[in-house]
Amino acid sequence: MIFRMQETKKHRLPVLAIDLGGTKIIAAIISNEGQVIAREYHLTLADEGVQPVINKIFSAVDHLLSLRNIGSSQLDSISIAAAGAINLEEGLITSSPNLPGWHDVPLRDIIEEKYGVKTFLINDANAAALGEHCFGAGKGVNNLIYLTVSTGIGGGIIINGELYSGSQGSAGEIGHMTIDTNGPRCNCGNIGCWEMLASGTAVAKEAIRRIRQGEESSLTEMVEGKIENITAEKVSKAAERGDSLALEVILKTATYLGVGLVNLVNIFNPEMIIIGGGMSKMGDLLLNPARQVVKERAFQISAQAVRIVPAQLGDDGGVLGAAAFAFQ
Amino acid sequence: MIFRMQETKKHRLPVLAIDLGGTKIIAAIISNEGQVIAREYHLTLADEGVQPVINKIFSAVDHLLSLRNIGSSQLDSISIAAAGAINLEEGLITSSPNLPGWHDVPLRDIIEEKYGVKTFLINDANAAALGEHCFGAGKGVNNLIYLTVSTGIGGGIIINGELYSGSQGSAGEIGHMTIDTNGPRCNCGNIGCWEMLASGTAVAKEAIRRIRQGEESSLTEMVEGKIENITAEKVSKAAERGDSLALEVILKTATYLGVGLVNLVNIFNPEMIIIGGGMSKMGDLLLNPARQVVKERAFQISAQAVRIVPAQLGDDGGVLGAAAFAFQ
Repeated sequence: MIFRMQETKKHRLPVLAIDLGGTKIIAAIISNEGQVIAREYHLTLADEGVQPVINKIFSAVDHLLSLRNIGSSQLDSISIAAAGAINLEEGLITSSPNLPGWHDVPLRDIIEEKYGVKTFLINDANAAALGEHCFGAGKGVNNLIYLTVSTGIGGGIIINGELYSGSQGSAGEIGHMTIDTNGPRCNCGNIGCWEMLASGTAVAKEAIRRIRQGEESSLTEMVEGKIENITAEKVSKAAERGDSLALEVILKTATYLGVGLVNLVNIFNPEMIIIGGGMSKMGDLLLNPARQVVKERAFQISAQAVRIVPAQLGDDGGVLGAAAFAFQ
Repeated sequence: MIFRMQETKKHRLPVLAIDLGGTKIIAAIISNEGQVIAREYHLTLADEGVQPVINKIFSAVDHLLSLRNIGSSQLDSISIAAAGAINLEEGLITSSPNLPGWHDVPLRDIIEEKYGVKTFLINDANAAALGEHCFGAGKGVNNLIYLTVSTGIGGGIIINGELYSGSQGSAGEIGHMTIDTNGPRCNCGNIGCWEMLASGTAVAKEAIRRIRQGEESSLTEMVEGKIENITAEKVSKAAERGDSLALEVILKTATYLGVGLVNLVNIFNPEMIIIGGGMSKMGDLLLNPARQVVKERAFQISAQAVRIVPAQLGDDGGVLGAAAFAFQ
């Protein structure tokens, strides 16, 4: 795919890509070779409501265009990666746990009408999958799964070099597979979802639970006794400094991460699984125990073949993926 | 795909297809329109060892050819669907729980050398998926999952109208996804696999467990007190006659079946899930509660879209699928 792009689309105009997340909006102008020509960040402030967020997208686009001194007609297209369930065909953000009030918002058409440029809208994890496939860790790898492990677990599936989005565009809700049928109910309505056990939220919750039960940890001091302020990031820092509770919590989470990875390896026999999102910053501390679970429990042929690697594009995964989607 | 076959391959020679299972061998001559021209069954008697089974395949092929009064040169190809892990590239049966002693048997080349005809070898559940897609319940459906629910749970994935077999040809081991991370260890090495909770084996085990604990059921009489002789088929019969223990066991299994279906619906957002194998003969008794779980727990867009239907090809699924694989 990347080859096709390089060979036949060399002189295409750039894409203006937007990554709309619950915390921040990233807007960037991206060449068809995956180069970020210009980029800017805004806080989403999602609680202000739908229209104020849309206005922030408008100003990000306007500002980027004026920075580069170009009009929207000098864009190939605009492409938005958004955190939430997307109706691909109709270009709607159907719902989003991180964007309160967003229900069936026709964001694609709103942007397209405002700027008079072909506009695309996809899910952010799907975008990041495509981004890593075209420009990152998965370059040249035709069958891969991308996971973003942060507050929750999102996913994107690349099959035969293309994003697989399912019959309604909602494939890839990998974080919502049951791995504990006797587990608690997830916000999504399902039971014992992977993301309840293997996400950043799970790390923080488990550390808080154990400390509240009276266990000792340097985390207590780190948050000045405000146990509820413990985050996955803080647990990770404590673990780096050798805190044994933090290390145990991460090992447990990594094992659960491995359980879900085994499922993906047995189902997809993928060449690669790429792990992005905040939790991936833990690196081998998280990935090695998860890889070990895959080695021990998955079908041997598939377990030996799969490479489980960290994402390479970091915060740019969403915009690069949105751009790749537009260029395809 | 089916259209391509009908339009451009109208005058192709037939395929001799073989379905090699743990219990029986089905051999059939199949036209490129999916018509079974001739068919015969043999008992596998797998315990006799590898060579005797291969000899049985030889005699099945020889007999079918002589029945039709043709030589192997009048075949398009020979295609084998086998119960077990397949090395697609090298044409090996890597291992098989139902074919004792079969380790890295180069069955494809053995047949190809014997008959001098291009020969194919694929996994039987993958074959059945392709068969249902080309000639059965999934005709015209481009994104579907096929499941065979019998002693275990096998699967096949059709994406964009083609069999998805993964990077080593071992994708589709759907029965071996963990749905109970605290569950017992499966023979495959994984823990709490779907097939341990939702297969025919699970039905029989659960009925036996409950009756041994002293619960009453007409099953006890049905097996003349030999509780260990209870099978899923017998539980199904007892349920049809209103036996409440049998009905409860099937409901529980159907619920677990639904749990795994939710995972597939959330991951793949497929148009259709086709359920074959012995357990599918229970029909709506099994499928309705499973459908209900999907409706309640899966992402709404995907849950509303997916059709969960019984397989149509029955015992011929394997040979028809093997033939479809060859014609592709």
